[in-house]
Amino acid sequence: MTERVREILSWYRSENPGVLTNLARLLNHGRLAGTGKLVILPVDQGFEHGPARSFAPNPAGYDPRYHFELAIEAGCNAYAAPLGFLEAGAAEYAGEVPLILKLNNSDTLYTGADPCPAVTGSVDDALRLGCVAIGFTIYPGSAARNEMYGQLRALAEEAKRKGLAVVVWSYPRGSGLSKAGETAVDVVAYAAQIAAQLGAHLIKVKPPTNHIEQEAARKVYEKQRIPIETLADRVRHVVQSAFNGRRIVIFSGGEAKETGAILDEIRAIRDGGGFGSIIGRNSFQRPKQEALDFLRTVMDIYAGNIA
Amino acid sequence: MTERVREILSWYRSENPGVLTNLARLLNHGRLAGTGKLVILPVDQGFEHGPARSFAPNPAGYDPRYHFELAIEAGCNAYAAPLGFLEAGAAEYAGEVPLILKLNNSDTLYTGADPCPAVTGSVDDALRLGCVAIGFTIYPGSAARNEMYGQLRALAEEAKRKGLAVVVWSYPRGSGLSKAGETAVDVVAYAAQIAAQLGAHLIKVKPPTNHIEQEAARKVYEKQRIPIETLADRVRHVVQSAFNGRRIVIFSGGEAKETGAILDEIRAIRDGGGFGSIIGRNSFQRPKQEALDFLRTVMDIYAGNIA
Amino acid sequence: MTERVREILSWYRSENPGVLTNLARLLNHGRLAGTGKLVILPVDQGFEHGPARSFAPNPAGYDPRYHFELAIEAGCNAYAAPLGFLEAGAAEYAGEVPLILKLNNSDTLYTGADPCPAVTGSVDDALRLGCVAIGFTIYPGSAARNEMYGQLRALAEEAKRKGLAVVVWSYPRGSGLSKAGETAVDVVAYAAQIAAQLGAHLIKVKPPTNHIEQEAARKVYEKQRIPIETLADRVRHVVQSAFNGRRIVIFSGGEAKETGAILDEIRAIRDGGGFGSIIGRNSFQRPKQEALDFLRTVMDIYAGNIA
Amino acid sequence: MTERVREILSWYRSENPGVLTNLARLLNHGRLAGTGKLVILPVDQGFEHGPARSFAPNPAGYDPRYHFELAIEAGCNAYAAPLGFLEAGAAEYAGEVPLILKLNNSDTLYTGADPCPAVTGSVDDALRLGCVAIGFTIYPGSAARNEMYGQLRALAEEAKRKGLAVVVWSYPRGSGLSKAGETAVDVVAYAAQIAAQLGAHLIKVKPPTNHIEQEAARKVYEKQRIPIETLADRVRHVVQSAFNGRRIVIFSGGEAKETGAILDEIRAIRDGGGFGSIIGRNSFQRPKQEALDFLRTVMDIYAGNIA
Amino acid sequence: MTERVREILSWYRSENPGVLTNLARLLNHGRLAGTGKLVILPVDQGFEHGPARSFAPNPAGYDPRYHFELAIEAGCNAYAAPLGFLEAGAAEYAGEVPLILKLNNSDTLYTGADPCPAVTGSVDDALRLGCVAIGFTIYPGSAARNEMYGQLRALAEEAKRKGLAVVVWSYPRGSGLSKAGETAVDVVAYAAQIAAQLGAHLIKVKPPTNHIEQEAARKVYEKQRIPIETLADRVRHVVQSAFNGRRIVIFSGGEAKETGAILDEIRAIRDGGGFGSIIGRNSFQRPKQEALDFLRTVMDIYAGNIA
Repeated sequence: MTERVREILSWYRSENPGVLTNLARLLNHGRLAGTGKLVILPVDQGFEHGPARSFAPNPAGYDPRYHFELAIEAGCNAYAAPLGFLEAGAAEYAGEVPLILKLNNSDTLYTGADPCPAVTGSVDDALRLGCVAIGFTIYPGSAARNEMYGQLRALAEEAKRKGLAVVVWSYPRGSGLSKAGETAVDVVAYAAQIAAQLGAHLIKVKPPTNHIEQEAARKVYEKQRIPIETLADRVRHVVQSAFNGRRIVIFSGGEAKETGAILDEIRAIRDGGGFGSIIGRNSFQRPKQEALDFLRTVMDIYAGNIA
Repeated sequence: MTERVREILSWYRSENPGVLTNLARLLNHGRLAGTGKLVILPVDQGFEHGPARSFAPNPAGYDPRYHFELAIEAGCNAYAAPLGFLEAGAAEYAGEVPLILKLNNSDTLYTGADPCPAVTGSVDDALRLGCVAIGFTIYPGSAARNEMYGQLRALAEEAKRKGLAVVVWSYPRGSGLSKAGETAVDVVAYAAQIAAQLGAHLIKVKPPTNHIEQEAARKVYEKQRIPIETLADRVRHVVQSAFNGRRIVIFSGGEAKETGAILDEIRAIRDGGGFGSIIGRNSFQRPKQEALDFLRTVMDIYAGNIA
Repeated sequence: MTERVREILSWYRSENPGVLTNLARLLNHGRLAGTGKLVILPVDQGFEHGPARSFAPNPAGYDPRYHFELAIEAGCNAYAAPLGFLEAGAAEYAGEVPLILKLNNSDTLYTGADPCPAVTGSVDDALRLGCVAIGFTIYPGSAARNEMYGQLRALAEEAKRKGLAVVVWSYPRGSGLSKAGETAVDVVAYAAQIAAQLGAHLIKVKPPTNHIEQEAARKVYEKQRIPIETLADRVRHVVQSAFNGRRIVIFSGGEAKETGAILDEIRAIRDGGGFGSIIGRNSFQRPKQEALDFLRTVMDIYAGNIA
Repeated sequence: MTERVREILSWYRSENPGVLTNLARLLNHGRLAGTGKLVILPVDQGFEHGPARSFAPNPAGYDPRYHFELAIEAGCNAYAAPLGFLEAGAAEYAGEVPLILKLNNSDTLYTGADPCPAVTGSVDDALRLGCVAIGFTIYPGSAARNEMYGQLRALAEEAKRKGLAVVVWSYPRGSGLSKAGETAVDVVAYAAQIAAQLGAHLIKVKPPTNHIEQEAARKVYEKQRIPIETLADRVRHVVQSAFNGRRIVIFSGGEAKETGAILDEIRAIRDGGGFGSIIGRNSFQRPKQEALDFLRTVMDIYAGNIA
Repeated sequence: MTERVREILSWYRSENPGVLTNLARLLNHGRLAGTGKLVILPVDQGFEHGPARSFAPNPAGYDPRYHFELAIEAGCNAYAAPLGFLEAGAAEYAGEVPLILKLNNSDTLYTGADPCPAVTGSVDDALRLGCVAIGFTIYPGSAARNEMYGQLRALAEEAKRKGLAVVVWSYPRGSGLSKAGETAVDVVAYAAQIAAQLGAHLIKVKPPTNHIEQEAARKVYEKQRIPIETLADRVRHVVQSAFNGRRIVIFSGGEAKETGAILDEIRAIRDGGGFGSIIGRNSFQRPKQEALDFLRTVMDIYAGNIA
């Protein structure tokens, strides 16, 4: 148990030892074990975007076993997926990588201005599948946000009682926001704060742009001269917004893109004090060896092994 | 216990032995026992379309006993129906054919753009009627989809705990889709993926057309050159979309049509690696002997006894 | 125990002996005991239409005891009413007439296009009041139908487990239907099918007219030349639509009308193979002796004592 | 479904279709499928007598997989064992042989004059392991009998509601009886009656001797000249005592003994109308091939293939 | 994940992935990670024997933190203790060593001939404390054994459903046995069998002597010439008695004794195929460094690093 992990656990002292144990399992697994940094493999795109858009670029990914193996071989801290994907491998790969059960998911066969994911799993499912945490998505900015916050509240309360950690995907979206606003720095920081206030242990947000969505916020950013020029600045601000860095904030990789660009982003997240990345499409849509090389590079950046 | 059935059961290792036993019962019953292929008789049209539209073409079908006997004599793997139809024969025909209790159903006396079936039975009903599985319909594309997914989630969790298998009818429908989109290959593949992610053991979809509904999907199909020319191609893609063939996917017969056309469809499903068919109206709306001959031909195609 | 009653009970072999016993009690009480025919006195109009509209024509009916006595003296198979009316006489008349507790009711102080009755009693109420069955109304065609079906599902499951029979009033109504459609022969047949599929033991519908509401149905009625000219034809079709006559279907008397017209209707129901009538307003809104004479004539028609 | 199985199922018409289905599964599995006769392999001796006394004579039996395979290869109707033994193979052998979970067991590290087994499994365990029935031992004659009868009552009620069959081992024992009385014909007949009255579907007793234990009974046996000379006579009397043959009564093999003697016993059970045997030690304590040959001979006797 | 651990997990395929995950955590932690061997530190002597008898020889052990640190520093697979001891350190040492919550314990302020421990914790306690397993003691041979077996049955069912492993201390004791009988080879083998049949995943027994307690057993040991001369022979027999080695059996260290004698015992356990040791007093009653040296030697013996 490293000093850093011990320090991180100290931020969650209201939680029972079961939650702390599962947070420790997350932090102490894989190539980044003990560093306080995390790289998580999430694969919910099959549900969110459909199978062809998700897996056709690297058809090995149609097979649920592929993602377990990718996470294990790359040395990720955890693998996060919806019920069906976890059920399809949790027995075979039991004990080989910490699992996070995504408890809600959206498909895109019906879309509306104010999306609300379906609840697709339970805390008891997470226990029977041997998970360390539940995952839950909220859409701040959606007219349906309160329904999501309410579902999260109940599930998080139950998960904590049963010793599971709570990971929240906080993705601003909906009729309350412009498209640019979804990744605006004020909005992403706000989304991180909401997730933290709802009791999340880990918070996943998107890398913020320097756009500012809310007029009331803009005045403060300007008056207080909050630095938001560089991505590292903005990451620092988002991490500060999540209880001054006393909640674990990780950043999504977003759409598949060119490797150099992603690695630059990773460096900025690291420089800004981000805790790590949750990288789905940029991992599993590449050929496996390429993905392993890529994920190792990402981990090396976070570990400080390379610049 | 054939090697093929053993292989299929190996895909469900997260489930308890009760679920595995009931999956084995489904796979080891009737003329296709042990082949890993299935032909199921579903009769929910009385509820879905009304009695005259369903049974007037072959009035013997008004009698609930008729369908038990048809499934038994034809050697189907299972008979699936709503509560009332099963209650009306489950004692007389106990132990003669595996039963699947459909737990939700839609009638067409009220229809809206975004349908949501009524929940019409319980997991405990399935136990007291001696069923091997529950059946549940979801309508991806409906504004009410999340309500259905949530109901399925709870019922599937309970069914699995009590040792029952879960069969999901995944029928895209609703205001999110065009009429052609309901059977578009991208949409059907997506519907199969959603059902699998929701934890279905068996998935029933409609045979897909070569229409592509979603623009974002079209780009991928074209870029990755996913073959969708023939029905066999499309079936192969749908089966791949259900966990790379590690979930049982069967295809509905759809509207009553000319026998030759159906048999061609069956051959394409077989050639594409589909696991079988669930054929309602094309079975019970014919005179019994004709239906028996027809179902045997279908089974012979799946068994590889005829081309 | 007559052969006919034994035959009727044989249709319900999935049910426990408690349900069979209560069905037998219904079938073996009153002047029609043992014939397999039933005449039931229902008095829920006080709740449905208000007291003056219901009871002012024959003020004796304000008194709940009146209806028990009417049912007993007329030799009805059962008396059906909401909670309050049964509570007001169940002790005094205990054991004198089988009782059916109506578990939902609508009042008309608030009305909307898509009605949904209130649940006004429980299965345990039915047990403590000594009832043989619960009664429940569904409105196929209402936007709220699924709520009713879901309530019925849960109540029927409980009632059956506790040995009570289930009587469903299946009355098409709501924004999915035209006014004429509420009694259209296709719709009434469909309503009978829905009730049977939901697990009803007895089904109450309205006498159907020769109107056809649904275009898709019309094509079938014409193509299959389903006879619907006479009321007897239509009754025969509705009975067939309820599991080929293997569920007990009875017909409501509907609005108060001239006696001769009602008796002609009764004859047609008998000739079409209907199992009997449930006659409220046409019974209790007459002076008692007239009502007794009337009900005896109805029973004589069903018993075949008169043409 | 043979006429004989249909006839046997008709004796249990108070049960729901789930129970009937599971009784049919028992009766329709293995080499005796459809004959109405049963040979069941029970292996609870490890718990009851200790491992060395049970398995040292044929050490392959230490392995829980051995007994599944023996039951499957011999074509037994079912395999019955305590929780641990079923858990250790129910997944691997799912669907290959009907399972009966023994819900109570006695060890012999503590013995008293009035034994009472421990409850060692639950009805929900039976569901999750895919069993067709629960098994339960009662010791009529023990001062603790009422505790066992009460446990059985509650478990049987739950099992039946959930669609499982109930098998009762009725073994007279305890301070109320002499040692010879445990197999006295009056006592065994009485034990069969008690099990039947407690709601057992299948009853297992020991082959009765011609000893009569109870004075009050002796007078009746003599006065009514009940034939008890031969084992066939006594088996006939015991079967008659279990509801005149309308409950399935099978006979235990008892202690390991010489093969010829056992086969004579089997012939007498067959001639007396017994429904079959439940043979543990005489099966699994032999080398496997010898056991298979032996069990096939037993089945041939019951099937009437040999004298 | 080593092949050996994978093989061990394959013995538990009826269990859900949660149980498999926690078994893997036990097997993959500490110095013996991956070998399939285990050394566990149990500290329930404070409850069982009183504080002075337990901790005075090495007063550091009065402090609950001492035992966590001892288990962590020694590289034990797990630390097992009652509720209070775990509550007093589970937060501080979260994630550093797998924990087993002992759910029942006996004190010796009241003793009787037929002991029955008190239930002192719950499955939910185990979850909130982050444990991998529950622990439970049974005393075969006690007149109160059935009460313990029944408690274990219920707790084990709940633990498995919630993904926790089940460790059973099977310690023959009580008026059914002589003092020598408590460690007699026939009794210890029987105790292992009972625990396995009750559904234990890990079984803890005492090293057996060559005494044989039960006459009926003696005949079998002699007739079958079961080797019981050496401790290795007897360990082999006990492991065989636990489902032919398909359940994990570990051996207690027993009373504090001279180090050389213990190490000889460990070698015999290893040579007989035992899975490891659970060593309390011989660990924590020594000065810490001595205990660490001692435990490492024990682990080296099991790992095959030294003879």
